[in-house]
Amino acid sequence: MTTVLKLGGSVITEKDQAETVDDVALERVAAAVGDALAGDEGVTDLVLVHGAGSFGHHYAAHHGVSTTDGTHDAAAIREIHSAMTTLNDAVLDALADYDVRGLPVQPLSSTSRDAEAMLDLPATNVERMLAEGFVPVLHGDMIAHDGKGATVLSGDEIIHSMARALSADRVGLCSTVPGVLDEDGAVIPSISSFDDVDDVLGGSEATDVTGGMAGKVRTLLSLSAPASIFGADDVSAFLAGEDPGTLVESE
Amino acid sequence: MTTVLKLGGSVITEKDQAETVDDVALERVAAAVGDALAGDEGVTDLVLVHGAGSFGHHYAAHHGVSTTDGTHDAAAIREIHSAMTTLNDAVLDALADYDVRGLPVQPLSSTSRDAEAMLDLPATNVERMLAEGFVPVLHGDMIAHDGKGATVLSGDEIIHSMARALSADRVGLCSTVPGVLDEDGAVIPSISSFDDVDDVLGGSEATDVTGGMAGKVRTLLSLSAPASIFGADDVSAFLAGEDPGTLVESE
Repeated sequence: MTTVLKLGGSVITEKDQAETVDDVALERVAAAVGDALAGDEGVTDLVLVHGAGSFGHHYAAHHGVSTTDGTHDAAAIREIHSAMTTLNDAVLDALADYDVRGLPVQPLSSTSRDAEAMLDLPATNVERMLAEGFVPVLHGDMIAHDGKGATVLSGDEIIHSMARALSADRVGLCSTVPGVLDEDGAVIPSISSFDDVDDVLGGSEATDVTGGMAGKVRTLLSLSAPASIFGADDVSAFLAGEDPGTLVESE
Repeated sequence: MTTVLKLGGSVITEKDQAETVDDVALERVAAAVGDALAGDEGVTDLVLVHGAGSFGHHYAAHHGVSTTDGTHDAAAIREIHSAMTTLNDAVLDALADYDVRGLPVQPLSSTSRDAEAMLDLPATNVERMLAEGFVPVLHGDMIAHDGKGATVLSGDEIIHSMARALSADRVGLCSTVPGVLDEDGAVIPSISSFDDVDDVLGGSEATDVTGGMAGKVRTLLSLSAPASIFGADDVSAFLAGEDPGTLVESE
Protein backbone atom coordinates (compact mmCIF):
# COMPACT_ATOMS: atom_id res chain seq x y z
CA MET A 1 0.00 0.00 0.00
CA THR A 2 1.86 3.07 -1.25
CA THR A 3 0.61 6.49 -0.21
CA VAL A 4 1.83 9.83 -1.57
CA LEU A 5 0.97 12.75 0.70
CA LYS A 6 1.60 16.38 -0.12
CA LEU A 7 1.89 18.98 2.61
CA GLY A 8 0.98 22.32 1.07
CA GLY A 9 3.63 25.00 1.48
CA SER A 10 1.00 27.31 2.96
CA VAL A 11 0.11 24.70 5.56
CA ILE A 12 3.59 24.38 7.07
CA THR A 13 4.94 27.92 6.63
CA GLU A 14 3.85 31.39 7.65
CA LYS A 15 2.72 32.66 4.30
CA ASP A 16 3.26 36.34 5.07
CA GLN A 17 6.72 36.05 6.66
CA ALA A 18 9.69 35.18 4.50
CA GLU A 19 11.31 31.85 5.34
CA THR A 20 9.31 31.19 8.48
CA VAL A 21 8.09 27.73 9.42
CA ASP A 22 4.65 27.45 11.03
CA ASP A 23 6.04 25.33 13.85
CA VAL A 24 2.68 24.53 15.41
CA ALA A 25 1.14 23.35 12.15
CA LEU A 26 4.25 21.40 11.16
CA GLU A 27 4.40 19.67 14.52
CA ARG A 28 0.74 18.65 14.29
CA VAL A 29 1.27 17.16 10.86
CA ALA A 30 4.46 15.40 11.94
CA ALA A 31 2.67 13.94 14.95
CA ALA A 32 -0.14 12.66 12.73
CA VAL A 33 2.35 11.02 10.39
CA GLY A 34 4.28 9.50 13.29
CA ASP A 35 1.11 8.12 14.86
CA ALA A 36 -0.05 6.62 11.59
CA LEU A 37 3.26 4.87 10.91
CA ALA A 38 3.43 3.54 14.48
CA GLY A 39 -0.23 2.50 14.51
CA ASP A 40 -2.20 -0.47 13.32
CA GLU A 41 -3.71 1.06 10.20
CA GLY A 42 -1.16 -0.61 7.96
CA VAL A 43 0.42 2.62 6.73
CA THR A 44 3.85 1.58 5.50
CA ASP A 45 5.12 2.94 2.23
CA LEU A 46 4.63 6.67 2.62
CA VAL A 47 6.16 9.33 0.38
CA LEU A 48 5.89 12.94 1.51
CA VAL A 49 6.11 15.99 -0.72
CA HIS A 50 6.03 19.56 0.49
CA GLY A 51 5.56 22.84 -1.27
CA ALA A 52 7.58 26.01 -0.93
CA GLY A 53 5.29 28.36 0.94
CA SER A 54 7.17 31.42 2.17
CA PHE A 55 10.54 29.71 1.53
CA GLY A 56 10.43 29.56 -2.22
CA HIS A 57 7.82 31.82 -3.70
CA HIS A 58 9.37 35.22 -3.05
CA TYR A 59 12.76 34.06 -4.36
CA ALA A 60 11.11 32.62 -7.44
CA ALA A 61 9.26 35.89 -8.00
CA HIS A 62 12.43 37.90 -7.37
CA HIS A 63 14.38 35.91 -9.97
CA GLY A 64 11.48 35.79 -12.42
CA VAL A 65 11.29 32.01 -12.63
CA SER A 66 8.27 29.72 -12.83
CA THR A 67 7.47 26.28 -14.18
CA THR A 68 7.83 27.77 -17.67
CA ASP A 69 10.22 30.73 -17.25
CA GLY A 70 13.77 29.63 -16.58
CA THR A 71 17.14 31.07 -15.63
CA HIS A 72 20.77 30.26 -16.40
CA ASP A 73 21.90 32.10 -13.25
CA ALA A 74 23.44 29.39 -11.04
CA ALA A 75 23.49 31.72 -8.02
CA ALA A 76 19.73 32.29 -8.34
CA ILE A 77 19.07 28.57 -8.68
CA ARG A 78 21.23 27.81 -5.66
CA GLU A 79 19.52 30.54 -3.61
CA ILE A 80 16.05 29.11 -4.26
CA HIS A 81 17.26 25.53 -3.78
CA SER A 82 19.00 26.44 -0.54
CA ALA A 83 15.86 28.02 0.92
CA MET A 84 13.96 24.84 0.04
CA THR A 85 16.69 22.76 1.67
CA THR A 86 16.21 24.76 4.88
CA LEU A 87 12.47 24.05 4.83
CA ASN A 88 13.08 20.38 3.98
CA ASP A 89 15.46 20.10 6.96
CA ALA A 90 12.79 21.61 9.22
CA VAL A 91 10.24 19.06 7.98
CA LEU A 92 12.69 16.18 8.46
CA ASP A 93 13.56 17.41 11.98
CA ALA A 94 9.88 17.65 12.93
CA LEU A 95 9.26 14.15 11.58
CA ALA A 96 12.29 12.79 13.47
CA ASP A 97 10.78 14.14 16.70
CA TYR A 98 7.93 11.68 16.08
CA ASP A 99 10.21 8.78 15.15
CA VAL A 100 9.57 9.09 11.43
CA ARG A 101 12.67 8.03 9.51
CA GLY A 102 12.53 10.70 6.86
CA LEU A 103 15.26 11.19 4.26
CA PRO A 104 15.66 14.13 1.86
CA VAL A 105 15.02 13.61 -1.85
CA GLN A 106 15.81 16.88 -3.61
CA PRO A 107 14.61 17.15 -7.20
CA LEU A 108 17.47 19.39 -8.41
CA SER A 109 19.72 16.36 -7.91
CA SER A 110 17.57 13.91 -9.82
CA THR A 111 14.94 15.51 -12.00
CA SER A 112 14.83 17.50 -15.25
CA ARG A 113 12.61 18.51 -18.15
CA ASP A 114 13.15 18.06 -21.85
CA ALA A 115 12.49 20.74 -24.47
CA GLU A 116 8.78 19.80 -24.50
CA ALA A 117 8.71 20.27 -20.70
CA MET A 118 8.25 16.53 -20.17
CA LEU A 119 9.49 15.57 -16.72
CA ASP A 120 12.13 12.94 -16.06
CA LEU A 121 11.76 12.08 -12.37
CA PRO A 122 13.66 8.89 -11.49
CA ALA A 123 11.99 6.91 -8.71
CA THR A 124 14.22 3.88 -8.15
CA ASN A 125 15.96 5.37 -5.10
CA VAL A 126 12.57 6.39 -3.67
CA GLU A 127 11.31 2.80 -4.09
CA ARG A 128 14.40 1.48 -2.33
CA MET A 129 14.06 3.96 0.52
CA LEU A 130 10.47 2.77 1.00
CA ALA A 131 11.52 -0.88 0.93
CA GLU A 132 14.05 -0.14 3.68
CA GLY A 133 11.44 1.56 5.87
CA PHE A 134 12.43 5.18 5.23
CA VAL A 135 10.05 8.02 4.39
CA PRO A 136 11.34 9.94 1.35
CA VAL A 137 10.55 13.65 1.68
CA LEU A 138 10.56 15.54 -1.63
CA HIS A 139 9.87 19.22 -2.26
CA GLY A 140 9.24 21.80 -4.90
CA ASP A 141 12.59 22.86 -6.36
CA MET A 142 14.49 24.23 -9.34
CA ILE A 143 15.39 21.65 -12.00
CA ALA A 144 17.36 21.63 -15.25
CA HIS A 145 15.19 22.32 -18.29
CA ASP A 146 16.35 21.81 -21.89
CA GLY A 147 16.77 25.21 -23.53
CA LYS A 148 15.66 27.22 -20.49
CA GLY A 149 18.41 26.68 -17.95
CA ALA A 150 16.40 25.72 -14.89
CA THR A 151 12.71 26.14 -14.12
CA VAL A 152 10.50 25.60 -11.08
CA LEU A 153 9.21 22.11 -10.35
CA SER A 154 6.04 22.43 -8.27
CA GLY A 155 4.99 20.09 -5.50
CA ASP A 156 1.83 19.29 -7.46
CA GLU A 157 3.91 18.17 -10.43
CA ILE A 158 5.92 15.90 -8.14
CA ILE A 159 2.71 14.37 -6.79
CA HIS A 160 1.52 13.62 -10.29
CA SER A 161 4.79 12.14 -11.50
CA MET A 162 5.63 10.22 -8.33
CA ALA A 163 2.14 8.74 -7.93
CA ARG A 164 2.40 7.34 -11.46
CA ALA A 165 6.00 6.15 -11.12
CA LEU A 166 5.23 4.30 -7.88
CA SER A 167 1.76 3.13 -8.94
CA ALA A 168 0.57 4.73 -5.71
CA ASP A 169 -2.60 3.33 -4.14
CA ARG A 170 -3.66 6.60 -2.54
CA VAL A 171 -2.82 10.27 -2.93
CA GLY A 172 -3.48 13.02 -0.40
CA LEU A 173 -3.19 16.79 -0.64
CA CYS A 174 -3.13 18.53 2.70
CA SER A 175 -4.23 22.07 1.99
CA THR A 176 -5.17 25.24 3.87
CA VAL A 177 -8.83 24.59 3.01
CA PRO A 178 -10.83 21.54 4.12
CA GLY A 179 -11.47 20.43 0.53
CA VAL A 180 -12.81 21.78 -2.76
CA LEU A 181 -15.50 24.26 -1.81
CA ASP A 182 -18.79 24.98 -3.58
CA GLU A 183 -20.36 28.45 -4.05
CA ASP A 184 -21.62 28.37 -0.48
CA GLY A 185 -18.25 27.43 1.02
CA ALA A 186 -19.28 23.84 1.71
CA VAL A 187 -16.88 20.96 0.97
CA ILE A 188 -17.77 19.03 -2.19
CA PRO A 189 -17.49 15.39 -1.07
CA SER A 190 -16.45 13.91 -4.40
CA ILE A 191 -15.44 14.89 -7.92
CA SER A 192 -15.30 12.40 -10.75
CA SER A 193 -15.02 14.77 -13.71
CA PHE A 194 -13.95 18.36 -14.19
CA ASP A 195 -17.46 19.13 -15.45
CA ASP A 196 -18.66 18.55 -11.87
CA VAL A 197 -16.79 21.62 -10.69
CA ASP A 198 -16.44 23.69 -13.83
CA ASP A 199 -18.63 26.44 -12.39
CA VAL A 200 -16.95 26.80 -9.02
CA LEU A 201 -13.34 26.42 -10.21
CA GLY A 202 -13.47 29.00 -12.95
CA GLY A 203 -14.10 27.00 -16.07
CA SER A 204 -12.06 24.74 -18.28
CA GLU A 205 -9.73 27.53 -19.41
CA ALA A 206 -8.14 27.59 -15.95
CA THR A 207 -4.69 26.12 -16.44
CA ASP A 208 -2.73 27.13 -13.33
CA VAL A 209 -0.17 24.54 -12.36
CA THR A 210 1.51 25.79 -9.21
CA GLY A 211 -1.21 26.44 -6.74
CA GLY A 212 -4.75 26.94 -7.90
CA MET A 213 -7.43 24.42 -7.07
CA ALA A 214 -8.48 23.97 -10.72
CA GLY A 215 -4.98 22.76 -11.59
CA LYS A 216 -4.88 20.44 -8.59
CA VAL A 217 -8.22 18.86 -9.49
CA ARG A 218 -7.17 18.36 -13.10
CA THR A 219 -3.89 16.78 -12.00
CA LEU A 220 -5.62 14.43 -9.59
CA LEU A 221 -8.29 13.42 -12.12
CA SER A 222 -5.51 12.28 -14.46
CA LEU A 223 -4.25 9.75 -11.90
CA SER A 224 -5.47 6.19 -11.63
CA ALA A 225 -5.23 6.35 -7.83
CA PRO A 226 -7.99 7.95 -5.76
CA ALA A 227 -6.93 11.31 -4.31
CA SER A 228 -8.19 13.36 -1.41
CA ILE A 229 -7.93 17.10 -0.82
CA PHE A 230 -8.33 17.99 2.85
CA GLY A 231 -7.25 20.39 5.58
CA ALA A 232 -4.50 20.04 8.19
CA ASP A 233 -6.98 18.68 10.74
CA ASP A 234 -7.63 15.65 8.57
CA VAL A 235 -4.13 14.19 8.06
CA SER A 236 -4.80 11.48 10.66
CA ALA A 237 -8.15 10.57 9.14
CA PHE A 238 -6.63 10.33 5.66
CA LEU A 239 -3.76 8.14 6.86
CA ALA A 240 -6.27 5.97 8.76
CA GLY A 241 -7.85 5.11 5.42
CA GLU A 242 -10.78 7.52 5.51
CA ASP A 243 -11.70 9.93 2.74
CA PRO A 244 -11.80 13.33 4.43
CA GLY A 245 -12.44 16.50 2.44
CA THR A 246 -12.98 16.01 -1.27
CA LEU A 247 -12.35 12.66 -2.95
CA VAL A 248 -11.15 13.14 -6.52
CA GLU A 249 -11.36 10.03 -8.67
CA SER A 250 -12.13 9.62 -12.36
CA GLU A 251 -14.87 7.22 -13.20
CA MET B 1 33.93 16.70 -25.24
CA THR B 2 32.75 15.52 -21.81
CA THR B 3 35.22 15.52 -18.93
CA VAL B 4 34.65 14.00 -15.50
CA LEU B 5 37.05 15.34 -12.87
CA LYS B 6 37.27 14.11 -9.32
CA LEU B 7 38.70 16.29 -6.59
CA GLY B 8 39.96 13.99 -3.87
CA GLY B 9 38.53 14.67 -0.43
CA SER B 10 42.04 14.87 0.97
CA VAL B 11 42.97 17.52 -1.59
CA ILE B 12 40.27 20.03 -0.62
CA THR B 13 39.94 19.38 3.13
CA GLU B 14 42.29 19.41 6.11
CA LYS B 15 42.53 15.71 6.69
CA ASP B 16 43.37 15.94 10.38
CA GLN B 17 40.73 18.50 11.39
CA ALA B 18 37.09 17.48 11.39
CA GLU B 19 34.95 19.36 8.85
CA THR B 20 37.61 21.83 7.79
CA VAL B 21 38.03 22.97 4.22
CA ASP B 22 41.56 23.52 2.93
CA ASP B 23 40.64 26.94 1.60
CA VAL B 24 43.94 27.56 -0.15
CA ALA B 25 43.87 24.26 -2.00
CA LEU B 26 40.18 24.59 -2.88
CA GLU B 27 40.68 28.11 -4.22
CA ARG B 28 43.58 26.99 -6.41
CA VAL B 29 41.52 24.17 -7.88
CA ALA B 30 38.50 26.45 -8.39
CA ALA B 31 40.69 29.02 -10.13
CA ALA B 32 42.10 26.33 -12.44
CA VAL B 33 38.58 25.16 -13.32
CA GLY B 34 37.40 28.72 -13.88
CA ASP B 35 40.36 29.52 -16.14
CA ALA B 36 39.84 26.36 -18.16
CA LEU B 37 36.14 27.02 -18.73
CA ALA B 38 36.81 30.67 -19.67
CA GLY B 39 39.80 29.80 -21.88
CA ASP B 40 40.27 28.63 -25.42
CA GLU B 41 41.02 24.98 -24.70
CA GLY B 42 37.51 23.92 -25.61
CA VAL B 43 36.60 22.67 -22.13
CA THR B 44 32.83 22.73 -22.05
CA ASP B 45 30.97 19.78 -20.59
CA LEU B 46 32.64 19.33 -17.21
CA VAL B 47 31.30 17.19 -14.38
CA LEU B 48 32.98 17.53 -10.99
CA VAL B 49 32.92 14.96 -8.22
CA HIS B 50 34.45 15.43 -4.81
CA GLY B 51 35.23 13.04 -2.01
CA ALA B 52 34.48 13.40 1.68
CA GLY B 53 37.86 14.07 3.26
CA SER B 54 37.48 15.24 6.84
CA PHE B 55 33.74 15.92 6.32
CA GLY B 56 32.54 12.40 5.86
CA HIS B 57 35.03 9.85 7.01
CA HIS B 58 34.86 10.32 10.76
CA TYR B 59 31.05 10.30 10.72
CA ALA B 60 31.08 7.16 8.59
CA ALA B 61 33.51 5.51 11.00
CA HIS B 62 31.46 6.67 14.00
CA HIS B 63 28.27 5.17 12.59
CA GLY B 64 30.01 2.03 11.31
CA VAL B 65 28.99 2.45 7.69
CA SER B 66 30.94 1.78 4.51
CA THR B 67 30.19 0.89 0.91
CA THR B 68 29.13 -2.55 2.17
CA ASP B 69 28.02 -1.97 5.78
CA GLY B 70 24.73 -0.11 5.99
CA THR B 71 22.47 1.52 8.54
CA HIS B 72 18.73 2.00 8.96
CA ASP B 73 19.31 4.97 11.29
CA ALA B 74 17.90 7.97 9.43
CA ALA B 75 19.54 10.41 11.85
CA ALA B 76 22.96 8.91 11.10
CA ILE B 77 22.34 9.05 7.36
CA ARG B 78 21.21 12.66 7.61
CA GLU B 79 24.24 13.61 9.74
CA ILE B 80 26.69 12.21 7.18
CA HIS B 81 24.72 13.66 4.26
CA SER B 82 24.52 17.06 5.94
CA ALA B 83 28.29 17.21 6.46
CA MET B 84 28.76 16.39 2.79
CA THR B 85 26.25 19.10 1.86
CA THR B 86 28.34 21.62 3.81
CA LEU B 87 31.46 20.61 1.88
CA ASN B 88 29.55 20.64 -1.41
CA ASP B 89 28.36 24.19 -0.66
CA ALA B 90 31.95 25.26 0.03
CA VAL B 91 33.07 23.79 -3.31
CA LEU B 92 30.18 25.49 -5.15
CA ASP B 93 30.95 28.81 -3.45
CA ALA B 94 34.64 28.59 -4.39
CA LEU B 95 33.71 27.77 -7.98
CA ALA B 96 31.24 30.66 -8.10
CA ASP B 97 34.08 33.02 -7.12
CA TYR B 98 35.70 32.04 -10.42
CA ASP B 99 32.50 32.35 -12.45
CA VAL B 100 31.91 28.62 -12.63
CA ARG B 101 28.16 27.92 -12.74
CA GLY B 102 28.19 24.92 -10.47
CA LEU B 103 25.01 23.18 -9.30
CA PRO B 104 24.71 20.53 -6.57
CA VAL B 105 23.87 16.95 -7.54
CA GLN B 106 23.54 14.95 -4.35
CA PRO B 107 23.47 11.17 -4.76
CA LEU B 108 21.17 10.48 -1.77
CA SER B 109 18.43 12.16 -3.82
CA SER B 110 18.99 10.16 -6.99
CA THR B 111 21.09 7.05 -6.53
CA SER B 112 20.67 3.62 -4.94
CA ARG B 113 21.98 0.07 -4.95
CA ASP B 114 20.12 -3.17 -5.48
CA ALA B 115 20.62 -6.31 -3.37
CA GLU B 116 23.65 -7.25 -5.50
CA ALA B 117 25.14 -3.78 -4.80
CA MET B 118 24.62 -2.76 -8.42
CA LEU B 119 24.39 1.02 -8.66
CA ASP B 120 21.46 2.88 -10.20
CA LEU B 121 22.78 6.39 -10.85
CA PRO B 122 20.45 8.34 -13.14
CA ALA B 123 22.30 10.83 -15.36
CA THR B 124 19.60 12.54 -17.41
CA ASN B 125 19.51 15.65 -15.21
CA VAL B 126 23.33 15.83 -15.28
CA GLU B 127 23.26 15.69 -19.10
CA ARG B 128 20.69 18.49 -19.17
CA MET B 129 22.69 20.62 -16.74
CA LEU B 130 25.72 20.22 -19.03
CA ALA B 131 23.69 21.12 -22.11
CA GLU B 132 22.55 24.32 -20.37
CA GLY B 133 26.13 25.31 -19.49
CA PHE B 134 26.09 24.34 -15.82
CA VAL B 135 28.78 22.35 -14.01
CA PRO B 136 27.16 19.53 -11.99
CA VAL B 137 29.07 18.94 -8.75
CA LEU B 138 28.51 15.50 -7.22
CA HIS B 139 29.99 14.06 -4.05
CA GLY B 140 30.43 10.91 -2.01
CA ASP B 141 27.25 10.35 0.00
CA MET B 142 24.95 7.86 1.70
CA ILE B 143 22.49 6.08 -0.62
CA ALA B 144 19.62 3.62 -0.22
CA HIS B 145 20.75 0.01 -0.52
CA ASP B 146 18.35 -2.95 -0.87
CA GLY B 147 18.42 -4.97 2.33
CA LYS B 148 21.02 -2.80 4.07
CA GLY B 149 19.26 0.50 4.68
CA ALA B 150 21.81 2.95 3.34
CA THR B 151 25.50 2.51 2.54
CA VAL B 152 28.34 4.81 1.51
CA LEU B 153 28.70 5.74 -2.14
CA SER B 154 32.33 6.70 -2.75
CA GLY B 155 33.52 9.40 -5.10
CA ASP B 156 35.44 6.78 -7.06
CA GLU B 157 32.25 4.80 -7.63
CA ILE B 158 30.55 7.95 -8.92
CA ILE B 159 33.43 8.55 -11.33
CA HIS B 160 33.09 5.05 -12.71
CA SER B 161 29.33 5.13 -13.08
CA MET B 162 29.08 8.72 -14.36
CA ALA B 163 31.91 8.32 -16.91
CA ARG B 164 30.07 5.34 -18.37
CA ALA B 165 26.63 6.93 -18.27
CA LEU B 166 27.86 10.08 -20.01
CA SER B 167 30.27 8.25 -22.37
CA ALA B 168 32.88 10.65 -21.03
CA ASP B 169 35.83 11.44 -23.28
CA ARG B 170 38.29 12.06 -20.45
CA VAL B 171 38.47 11.27 -16.76
CA GLY B 172 40.74 12.95 -14.21
CA LEU B 173 41.49 12.12 -10.59
CA CYS B 174 43.09 14.98 -8.70
CA SER B 175 44.85 13.35 -5.79
CA THR B 176 47.28 14.26 -2.98
CA VAL B 177 50.04 12.49 -4.87
CA PRO B 178 51.33 13.49 -8.34
CA GLY B 179 50.36 10.13 -9.87
CA VAL B 180 50.83 6.41 -9.30
CA LEU B 181 54.29 6.06 -7.80
CA ASP B 182 56.82 3.29 -8.37
CA GLU B 183 59.08 1.76 -5.69
CA ASP B 184 61.39 4.75 -5.90
CA GLY B 185 58.62 7.31 -5.53
CA ALA B 186 58.74 8.32 -9.20
CA VAL B 187 55.50 8.85 -11.15
CA ILE B 188 54.66 5.97 -13.49
CA PRO B 189 53.73 7.76 -16.74
CA SER B 190 51.24 5.21 -18.04
CA ILE B 191 49.44 2.04 -17.05
CA SER B 192 47.61 -0.13 -19.55
CA SER B 193 47.07 -3.25 -17.44
CA PHE B 194 46.98 -4.05 -13.76
CA ASP B 195 49.93 -6.38 -14.32
CA ASP B 196 52.05 -3.28 -14.98
CA VAL B 197 51.66 -2.17 -11.37
CA ASP B 198 50.89 -5.42 -9.58
CA ASP B 199 54.14 -5.19 -7.62
CA VAL B 200 53.87 -1.59 -6.44
CA LEU B 201 50.15 -1.58 -5.68
CA GLY B 202 50.11 -4.65 -3.50
CA GLY B 203 49.05 -7.38 -5.86
CA SER B 204 45.81 -8.45 -7.42
CA GLU B 205 44.20 -9.34 -4.10
CA ALA B 206 43.95 -5.63 -3.24
CA THR B 207 40.25 -4.83 -3.49
CA ASP B 208 39.82 -1.52 -1.67
CA VAL B 209 37.08 0.61 -3.17
CA THR B 210 37.00 3.85 -1.21
CA GLY B 211 40.46 5.27 -1.37
CA GLY B 212 43.39 3.04 -2.13
CA MET B 213 45.33 3.47 -5.34
CA ALA B 214 44.90 -0.17 -6.38
CA GLY B 215 41.13 0.26 -6.41
CA LYS B 216 41.38 3.52 -8.33
CA VAL B 217 43.60 1.98 -11.00
CA ARG B 218 41.29 -1.02 -11.39
CA THR B 219 38.28 1.27 -11.69
CA LEU B 220 39.95 3.45 -14.30
CA LEU B 221 41.18 0.47 -16.33
CA SER B 222 37.57 -0.70 -16.65
CA LEU B 223 36.57 2.53 -18.41
CA SER B 224 36.71 3.06 -22.14
CA ALA B 225 37.83 6.68 -21.62
CA PRO B 226 41.47 7.52 -20.89
CA ALA B 227 42.00 8.59 -17.28
CA SER B 228 44.70 10.57 -15.56
CA ILE B 229 45.77 10.52 -11.90
CA PHE B 230 47.63 13.67 -10.91
CA GLY B 231 48.28 16.13 -8.10
CA ALA B 232 46.61 19.44 -7.31
CA ASP B 233 49.28 21.36 -9.24
CA ASP B 234 48.25 19.68 -12.46
CA VAL B 235 44.52 20.49 -12.70
CA SER B 236 45.19 23.22 -15.27
CA ALA B 237 47.43 20.97 -17.36
CA PHE B 238 44.81 18.21 -17.34
CA LEU B 239 42.01 20.56 -18.33
CA ALA B 240 44.26 22.01 -21.07
CA GLY B 241 44.30 18.57 -22.66
CA GLU B 242 47.64 17.34 -21.37
CA ASP B 243 48.25 14.02 -19.63
CA PRO B 244 49.91 14.98 -16.35
CA GLY B 245 50.73 12.35 -13.74
CA THR B 246 49.80 8.81 -14.65
CA LEU B 247 47.69 8.02 -17.71
CA VAL B 248 45.55 4.92 -17.13
CA GLU B 249 44.10 3.42 -20.29
CA SER B 250 43.42 -0.21 -21.21
CA GLU B 251 44.91 -1.38 -24.46
